[in-house]
Amino acid sequence: MAKDFTTREDNYSQWYNELVKKADLAEQSSVRGCMVIKPYGYALWEKMKSIMDAKFKETGHSNAYFPLFIPKSFFSREAEHVSGFAKECAVVTHYRLKVDEGSNSIVVDPEARLEEELIVRPTSETIIWDSYRNWIHSYRDLPILINQWANVVRWEMRTRLFLRTAEFLWQEGHTAHATREEAVEEAQKMINVYADFVENYMAIPVIKGVKTPNERFAGAIDTYCIEALMQDGKALQAGTSHFLGQNFAKSFDVQFLDKDNNLQYVWATSWGVSTRLIGALIMSHSDDNGLVLPPKLAPIQVVIVPIYNKLEQLPAVSEVALKIKKELEAKGISVKYDDDDNNRPGWKFHEYEFKGVPVRLAIGPRDIQNNTIEVARRDTLTKESMPIDGIADNVAKLLDDIQSNLFKLALERREQMTHEANTWDEFCELIEKGGFVLAHWDGTTETEIAIKEKTKATIRVLPFEYTPEEGKCILTGKPSHRRVIFARAY
Amino acid sequence: MAKDFTTREDNYSQWYNELVKKADLAEQSSVRGCMVIKPYGYALWEKMKSIMDAKFKETGHSNAYFPLFIPKSFFSREAEHVSGFAKECAVVTHYRLKVDEGSNSIVVDPEARLEEELIVRPTSETIIWDSYRNWIHSYRDLPILINQWANVVRWEMRTRLFLRTAEFLWQEGHTAHATREEAVEEAQKMINVYADFVENYMAIPVIKGVKTPNERFAGAIDTYCIEALMQDGKALQAGTSHFLGQNFAKSFDVQFLDKDNNLQYVWATSWGVSTRLIGALIMSHSDDNGLVLPPKLAPIQVVIVPIYNKLEQLPAVSEVALKIKKELEAKGISVKYDDDDNNRPGWKFHEYEFKGVPVRLAIGPRDIQNNTIEVARRDTLTKESMPIDGIADNVAKLLDDIQSNLFKLALERREQMTHEANTWDEFCELIEKGGFVLAHWDGTTETEIAIKEKTKATIRVLPFEYTPEEGKCILTGKPSHRRVIFARAY
Repeated sequence: MAKDFTTREDNYSQWYNELVKKADLAEQSSVRGCMVIKPYGYALWEKMKSIMDAKFKETGHSNAYFPLFIPKSFFSREAEHVSGFAKECAVVTHYRLKVDEGSNSIVVDPEARLEEELIVRPTSETIIWDSYRNWIHSYRDLPILINQWANVVRWEMRTRLFLRTAEFLWQEGHTAHATREEAVEEAQKMINVYADFVENYMAIPVIKGVKTPNERFAGAIDTYCIEALMQDGKALQAGTSHFLGQNFAKSFDVQFLDKDNNLQYVWATSWGVSTRLIGALIMSHSDDNGLVLPPKLAPIQVVIVPIYNKLEQLPAVSEVALKIKKELEAKGISVKYDDDDNNRPGWKFHEYEFKGVPVRLAIGPRDIQNNTIEVARRDTLTKESMPIDGIADNVAKLLDDIQSNLFKLALERREQMTHEANTWDEFCELIEKGGFVLAHWDGTTETEIAIKEKTKATIRVLPFEYTPEEGKCILTGKPSHRRVIFARAY
Repeated sequence: MAKDFTTREDNYSQWYNELVKKADLAEQSSVRGCMVIKPYGYALWEKMKSIMDAKFKETGHSNAYFPLFIPKSFFSREAEHVSGFAKECAVVTHYRLKVDEGSNSIVVDPEARLEEELIVRPTSETIIWDSYRNWIHSYRDLPILINQWANVVRWEMRTRLFLRTAEFLWQEGHTAHATREEAVEEAQKMINVYADFVENYMAIPVIKGVKTPNERFAGAIDTYCIEALMQDGKALQAGTSHFLGQNFAKSFDVQFLDKDNNLQYVWATSWGVSTRLIGALIMSHSDDNGLVLPPKLAPIQVVIVPIYNKLEQLPAVSEVALKIKKELEAKGISVKYDDDDNNRPGWKFHEYEFKGVPVRLAIGPRDIQNNTIEVARRDTLTKESMPIDGIADNVAKLLDDIQSNLFKLALERREQMTHEANTWDEFCELIEKGGFVLAHWDGTTETEIAIKEKTKATIRVLPFEYTPEEGKCILTGKPSHRRVIFARAY
């Protein structure tokens, strides 16, 4: 356990906050609820971004950029949308500051009031569909498959680094289609793209499915989601993809002439993931020694630390270390060789362990004599001596092992923390313990809200894959044909 | 000349506006002064971004992300900074909307007024130096070499797509150093990085130098810049790098203990380029047939168009075309094969010409018989028949030729449009004609402003490279030891 570092058992929430700061991922800024993403945290986001961006392009999407500001009136057009976002948005009312002549201080110039207030985008459906109206006239203009990487603002009252911040970074896909079927297919395709990314790169198992009406995106017909389970037994929504029907097309009057020359409203989807995923990554794999990163996302995959007593020994060690570095890099592995003489090896071991570097190599004069190198893996905290010959192949294999081991551990944990509840008491007890609780529900929003009020648990997802089963709602006893997944959530 | 397309001679400004729209690069949004960057325009920005990003990383910089919002009081701390930006900024005053019970419309909730107004960043020196205060304690924490890719807002009254918009995308580097020398060196290094990018990728020759005090960034000690000349004879500032001295460190109280244990203020630089560069790119190379893109930045470098009379001929043509596409792609060339049967070859030729695709290949049954292919280059609008054998090598070479030809043409044009003025009348005449005017200046801001008022020309740059020469100020006749560059500018 690292010094001055809270354990998960002691206080999971404090452990998380300290980890984010001490691993140099992010910190609070002077602006309430807005974070500074530090270089190491941003390098992680860049890796995530570039992998997802490639996947979006492979599935036919292009990037574009729409305005940061949304006229207030646009919001009002889609009734559910405005009620979903109006309570937490940053409003621009003026466009100039001036020096107050009396106090000589800088004040907002009252004469520079905007005719119509602008909202800093919390999501861009409205401003984008306002543009799409001019882009879409005929079925030949469809589909439109666009993604945007952007910052958005939601004025959350209680914020936590990465998990819930007033400003966050995300991507938002916005697509337009000629038919309902095509739009539904797109929304489902993208939830699968997200699931692939989160499982195979972030090493976090997810459950794919659909949200209840109460948990839907404001303005959607259906919200598909991927739900993950954190180490403390709380659920985290890792990504959503919405089938928006014709709601935004109708609000913004976007119609097209179909092949039979009939005017029809356009069908829409939107889908997004955000820097919140970094929070999920931390809470899935990290431990009381700090961050644990899956190799596919680690900004530094391998660190090499030279071991020596006297500075004169360093050049000979460096020669071998740099040769190994080159071999690893030739395999596309990102390597840092830390020969900074100001810090001792023990300090470096701790530093890179805390920052979650998947593999650490340590090499000194004796290793060179023996033609071996010490290899430590971050996930299991074990180390072994390996021959220098063939080290690049072995490290590459080890990185693969760590990647799949992290997924396996997370999956096992989720399975251990997933239970069926058949009575209300059992349900309350399981919810209190944490984890996913599979239970019957009568299908009404009323019951869903009542359960949430009593237990703080929400219905996380109605999984796509499930076994039909007759049962009785955990709260009302009314008939139900399937179990749904309840949990307390981030 | 394309139909419905204004020529440069007819109306250069209208030509530009039409080109941006018709080439599908960008359009005005419903929000005053904010643009929508469309997929083709954004693909161009992505290419520019990825090349520059790699150059920033090669020179030791890391990316990070700082808040969109800046507390009003931060602005006031650096006196020149606030006077430079206060007159054109978006001010957030509230954080909630509500339904007005009387009118049932959405209004700003007067109870959700922020205690301190937030400014949407026009540039991030203040919020970043507020963070740096906590990061920097000792000389060991220096240098800090950080870059941010972000959106910024400056409430410009007269906007033009890419050239001047209320919101734009940019990168801003912010570095912190232990010594003045190191900071000056960094600021100069980055102006050289920009010059390398603009000349060798954008194919636009630039003049490197320093701005006069009057044209400096608000808060800088020195502003280095690269200045380019557009086809209409107006100058465009393509990038700036600022030596900020200790101004921001003093305003935000950022001090460090040096090696001798003395407390000192930190030295700073900042540097940025923006989506404005896309405007420069268009105005440097494009012609009355539309966009002309340098191959190194073109999202599509080569388009292949099949020529056929009957649809039955297409498969045989496609077979050869796709083989050529594969060969080109193996050389890292981005290729589009447009076999859309809905559009005729003539339409396609026009379309890709207008969009500035550097090389167009056209191939039909007769070409296949002759084992040739028609190769057209966008820069010269010439075409020739080439053997299919070795086509990939020839096209790769052609792309290189186009890249260097565009630079050569732009350089020749600049040379033709650069003149020395030795009398006031000569100066006025040359400024009216357009281009760079080399003239003597007495070194005072007063004279600089007087010249601007009389001629609308500003001093664009005091070039790093110049020949000392005794002369007399073009306006006041006072002694001067060098010529500086005047021009009207975007």
